[in-house]
This record gives sequence, C-alpha cells and structure tokens, in this order.
Amino acid sequence: MAYTFEKSKELFARAAKVIPQGVYGHLTPVITVPGAYPYFIKKAKGAHFWDVDGNEYIDYICAYGPMILGYAHEKVDEAFAKQAKDGTSCTIASPLMIELAERIVNLNECADWALFAKNGADTTSLAVVLARAHTRRKKIVLAKGGYHGVQPWCVPSLVGVIPEDRQHIIMVEWGDLDEFKEVVKSYKDQIAGALFTPYHHPAFGDSELPKPGFWAEMRRICDDNGIVLIIDDVRAGWRLDLKGSGHYFGFKPDIACYCKAIANGYSISAIVGTEKLRLTAAKAYTTGSYWFNSPEMAAALACIDEMERIDAPAILRERGMALTNGLKELAGAHGLQVTISGPPAIPFMSFSNEEDFMRSQVFCAECSKNGVYFHPHHNWFISAAHTEEDIKKTLDVADKAFKVVKNQFGG
Amino acid sequence: MAYTFEKSKELFARAAKVIPQGVYGHLTPVITVPGAYPYFIKKAKGAHFWDVDGNEYIDYICAYGPMILGYAHEKVDEAFAKQAKDGTSCTIASPLMIELAERIVNLNECADWALFAKNGADTTSLAVVLARAHTRRKKIVLAKGGYHGVQPWCVPSLVGVIPEDRQHIIMVEWGDLDEFKEVVKSYKDQIAGALFTPYHHPAFGDSELPKPGFWAEMRRICDDNGIVLIIDDVRAGWRLDLKGSGHYFGFKPDIACYCKAIANGYSISAIVGTEKLRLTAAKAYTTGSYWFNSPEMAAALACIDEMERIDAPAILRERGMALTNGLKELAGAHGLQVTISGPPAIPFMSFSNEEDFMRSQVFCAECSKNGVYFHPHHNWFISAAHTEEDIKKTLDVADKAFKVVKNQFGG
Repeated sequence: MAYTFEKSKELFARAAKVIPQGVYGHLTPVITVPGAYPYFIKKAKGAHFWDVDGNEYIDYICAYGPMILGYAHEKVDEAFAKQAKDGTSCTIASPLMIELAERIVNLNECADWALFAKNGADTTSLAVVLARAHTRRKKIVLAKGGYHGVQPWCVPSLVGVIPEDRQHIIMVEWGDLDEFKEVVKSYKDQIAGALFTPYHHPAFGDSELPKPGFWAEMRRICDDNGIVLIIDDVRAGWRLDLKGSGHYFGFKPDIACYCKAIANGYSISAIVGTEKLRLTAAKAYTTGSYWFNSPEMAAALACIDEMERIDAPAILRERGMALTNGLKELAGAHGLQVTISGPPAIPFMSFSNEEDFMRSQVFCAECSKNGVYFHPHHNWFISAAHTEEDIKKTLDVADKAFKVVKNQFGG
Repeated sequence: MAYTFEKSKELFARAAKVIPQGVYGHLTPVITVPGAYPYFIKKAKGAHFWDVDGNEYIDYICAYGPMILGYAHEKVDEAFAKQAKDGTSCTIASPLMIELAERIVNLNECADWALFAKNGADTTSLAVVLARAHTRRKKIVLAKGGYHGVQPWCVPSLVGVIPEDRQHIIMVEWGDLDEFKEVVKSYKDQIAGALFTPYHHPAFGDSELPKPGFWAEMRRICDDNGIVLIIDDVRAGWRLDLKGSGHYFGFKPDIACYCKAIANGYSISAIVGTEKLRLTAAKAYTTGSYWFNSPEMAAALACIDEMERIDAPAILRERGMALTNGLKELAGAHGLQVTISGPPAIPFMSFSNEEDFMRSQVFCAECSKNGVYFHPHHNWFISAAHTEEDIKKTLDVADKAFKVVKNQFGG
C-alpha cells in the first residue's frame, strides 16, 4: 500500500504559521512534487528514516550529503557525547582543533593548513576573501549552475541580491576550457580566484565529470596567470577520495572547502590550503559563535577514522555501481531511456528524452510513496550504511515506478 | 602561586604548524596579552574551565556569549543527546523545528516567524538581504565599531574586502540620532535597513546604553522612511530579557538576529521578524548544511525552558551587579578610577584615565594568572552558573590585581 502523509500535512499547516514557507531551504521535493513526499521526520538510523506518519524510507539523499556512515552512527555519536561532557562552546579552543587540523593536513593532499567553521558557505566566502587578499585582485570566476551557499555573491536566487554583490563575479560554463581561457585573457591580471566544484553537480541537470586533462590544464592556466584555484568540495568531499577530490581527479587546488560528510552530520566545516596561502589565511579575520566547539571536532576525528578504516569511498562506489547498473537495466527492460550521471558514490538519474523532469517527478514520487527516497532534481548520495539488501529492495520499488512512468508517458 | 602555561605554549607551537596564526578568531587576549593567558582548554563545567596545564578559571567570557546556564549543563546536554539518538542532520526537518519556532514566536515580542541557521552572521546577512528585497533599496546603515560577523560587508578588517562589498554600507556613530537623521535625509528613499545592536558593545571601548527615548525615535524615523529596523541581538539576546532586547529597551524591531546563548553553546542561530517581512522571508533562498539538525533545536528548547524557569536575566543582573559594584569599590579603595559600562549581565570595566588599555591589560593578566578570566578589550558575560562564592573569589583576585596596577602605574 502506498504511503500517505496525513501527519506531515497537519504539521506543515502548523509550521506555515511560524516559519516562512513552512519549510525552507534545499530543493525539497515536497514542494516541487506535492503529495508524494513527507514534510517531517520522526527518526533516522543507518540508511533509513521514518517520517512522522511512520513511513520508512531507504534514503538516497543522506541529509544532502552530511550522512556518510549512517544516521545515528554509534562511534561518531559516542565521540561527540564524550567530548560534550567537558563542554561544547568554550572561551578558548580545545587541543582537538590541533588534532583535527593535523589529521586533515596529513590526509588531504592539498592541505598544508586548516581552519574550521560551521557552514560550507563560511569556507567558500572565506576562500573568496583569501583569493582577493592574496592577489590584490577583485574578479572571481564561478560556473553557471554551481552551488556555493546562500551568501549574496553566490546564492541561486536574486531575491535581495544587489548587482554590486556580483559586480566582480564572472560566470562561465563548467568544464569549458576555451571559455575559461577567453575570460582569463579578457580580464588579464584582474582575476583573483577560480572557484569550482571538482565535477559539475547542478540542480535540475545531469552531473558532468571532468574531461581527461581538464584539471591539469586548469591548474596550468591558473598558475600561469596568478589565479588562486579554489575547489568547493563541500558536496563531493570524502565521498570520492579521503585525500580530497583534487587527488581523485589528479590535480592540486590552492584552497579546498569541506563540510557535510566531514563529521557524519555534526555542525562543522573546514577550509584547507597550500603553503602559499598560509600567511594570507593568518591575516584574514575569521571567527564565529561555536567555531571552537570541540565535540564537533571529536565527531569529525571519529568520522574520518571510520571512513578510513572501512575505506568508505570504495564501499560507496561499489553500492553506487550496484544501484545505477540495476536502475539502467530495469529502465531498459521497460523500454525507457535513462541517463546515469556523476560518480557512482554521488549518482543522479534522469530520463534521457525529457528536459522538464516530468518523468523524473513521477518516478521519484512513486518511489517515495513506496519507501525509497530519491530526488527528481538534485543528485543523490550513497552512504556506507546502504546494504546490498537496501539496493535490492530499492530496485524492486524502482521496477514498479518505471512501470508507472511507462504507462503514463509511453517510451 | 601564579599560573604558568607550559603545555599551552607547547600546543601553540604545534598548532602554528597546521593552523594559520595557531589560534584564529575572536579577540583572544592570549594574542594581545602574551604570556598571561592559556591557549587551550582541557574541560569546562559550570562557570569554570580548566586549561591544558590544569589551571582553573572562573570564566567571565562564557565562550563569548553562548554559555549562559553553565558549561556542560545537564538538562540542555540531555535534551541534545536524547534527540541525537534519532539522527543529527537529516534529509527533512524534524517537528522540533516547528516547536522551537512556536516557542520563540510566543516568547519574543517582535517575532511573528522564525528561521534557523548556524552562525550569527547567517542571520545578519539574511537580514540585509530581506531588507533589500522588502524595500527594493540598496543602502544599509550600520554603527561604527558594531560587530555583525565576518562576511565582507561587515567584517572588522579590510583583508580581502573590496570596496564593492561595502559600496552601499553607511556607517554612523551608534546612538547619534542627529547623524542618523542626517543620513536618512541625504539618502532619501535609498535606505533599505538600519542594522544595530540594541546597545553599543564595541571591542576596545566602553559599552554604551541607549539614551531615554532613543529607540522610540529610531523606530519613528524608520517607520516614516520605510526603513527596515534590524536588531543584532546575537550578543545581548537572552541575557537582558527573554522577550528580546527590543522589549528590554521598549521598542519593536522588524527583524532580530539571535545566536550564542540560544542553546547554551550548541550550534544554532535564529532570525525572527514581524508579519510585514514574512512574505519576503518566504521568497528568500536560505539554507545550509546542518540547518535542519534537530538535536540543536532540542537543546535550544531545553535552554529556553530553563532560562525561563530560573528567570536567567534576573540572576545575571544580580550577579553582574555584585561583581561590578565590588570591582568599583575595590578600585576606589586602591585610589583607582574605573568605568563600569554595559548592562550588569554583560558588563565591561575599563580604567577611566587611559585610552590605550595598558592598565586593563595588566589588571586582566594578573586576574588570569590567578584564576579569573576577564578580557581587557571585549565585554564580559555573566552566566547563571556564576555563584556568590565565585563573585567573592573573583573580588579577592581582583583586589590583588588592582594593587599590581596601582604599583605599576600609580593613581
């Protein structure tokens, strides 16, 4: 029997009275595909969550990235709880900050230093500041459709944004070397930084991996022109390669931004950089409430240890391959064409013969109403807690959902 | 015997290898008064913390505000831990988000709605966006020496900041009605928002309370000119009045920003606003990793309950009065003139006959080396965990520190 969402709807009506829009943020499919998704969660464990109506889901969004080892992961939670007994936010930092910085500097190929914050956008905004301070230039090159947080210089909306916020932001197509070269030529000696995700993962679009040689060439252009190369690894970081997505794709950024999976869901982000940016990073004024919180640092250390122990990226790749191969096969059996894009650990599926995502919405709605939480417009995430049994159940549900798509849309 | 900081210094040398500047952020006195303060903490409980050398401090910085009920507060910590068993960061929000929004809307006088984030600056930056979206104007008026976070439009530094970041920021003296009126006249119909702290609490300066009638007049000017009045209540919020510092000073802002004490140190901030801003807030794109984390919301609910149960602002006022009256009396007995400023719950003491803070540094260094953590250049914070015994011990230490100041500087 397909799920219903009565309690979710009641709570949404209550929420709408005290929270603008009822629920905010993220591209929650409950807004874009009304009636097929839960609004509120009751609890989560492993790769599953239960909504307020008691419906259970195999979750392929993983909190939009933070969950990598499984919800309510004992080792990470214990590390947090143990440290919290000695205080959370304190007047001075804990030596755990040093331990965590050392751990990341030892592990991450481009990290000679690290700083910690709360949001991904704390780190991308600081990266822009560091690039400008280091080069004494103003321009920042970003990719169209890239996401770097909700600060006015990058938020994917124009509400409340003034032109001056983006006066020195130059947008290019992700992965288009010719366009990037053209921009570098046009704005010679004016570009402070180029800030990109390690591969392109836009909302409402297929993911796009770098072409062979792309990053080597980008690195060369940035070096030749004194441009700080910044990688926003907030979404892909830790899932592809514990040494950083730069290492995975074979290049070394000057600055990389981490958040999400770093502590399996606890509130901490990190910015790392190479030696040449160290002095600039030391000069920049950066702080925030809770930035010294040590339990989050303990959680990050435990999460990194566990990701390394189990070789999380290998597990995600394997599970992601099983899922996407299965989906492709099932779609074919139904005479449907799907595009699987992105790395297997962070996959996305769209229907090849549409641009309006209508088939995706019907497919994902059917899956949601039968216990599999996919997103029609945003890449998915695999976690180390997804079991072979989860994948099998998921494919059973997907099989029926493909059938509904076929019946409704034809081939 | 005065404290020594051998382990702190060793750790700092280690930190400097992997963290730019070794420790970053905040106006930590360990940088401005070297040799007299600890670099790293071991643990904290109640109003006390212990550094890595085992030195114990009565802490009047309270993590720069977040700690209001005492470090490692059982009720708040239990609420967090209980909720964490059902997951931290999840794909959809918990009904706790509604509960917390309702709680704040019921309690806070200017709140018809609430949104939650992680940093204070997430909320001040969003407030600027909302003011601009609501008015379709660009200019934002801020006070010189005000602190609203580290985003380029407001960070107290020019490293990496470009002029365009502040092209529409107008700086005035806090509390100067004539200057504000002049600015409003000069930029008629161009000012989107006026963003101020409810009273002035600059670093390297005395705090300044509003003159009688100041806020009523500010409210009137903003209303007459269609300006969104925003209060940055990140530092003062919850300590003066659980209904908001606007209520405390007798006015109603359009938007207020909260963080720090809201959850006794767990990572959550809140922006609240009146009905007229609700639709704008619904249209704005705002989100971030971990913004749906429910344990922080459970902690905030428990913290607010406890603050209300014990009437935290009354306790802070009483303890703050005992501390500041005691300090004033002792200073007088030593023939020293001190200025006590700010509300008793968030007091600051400076020496009246100096502008370079040299006496303050000597006084605070002496206190630190004898177990009382004051800050020479930043306002202090009282918590509900500070006991009468703590105040008594503090005054004993202060007595000796005043003597050192007297010996070194004379009257």
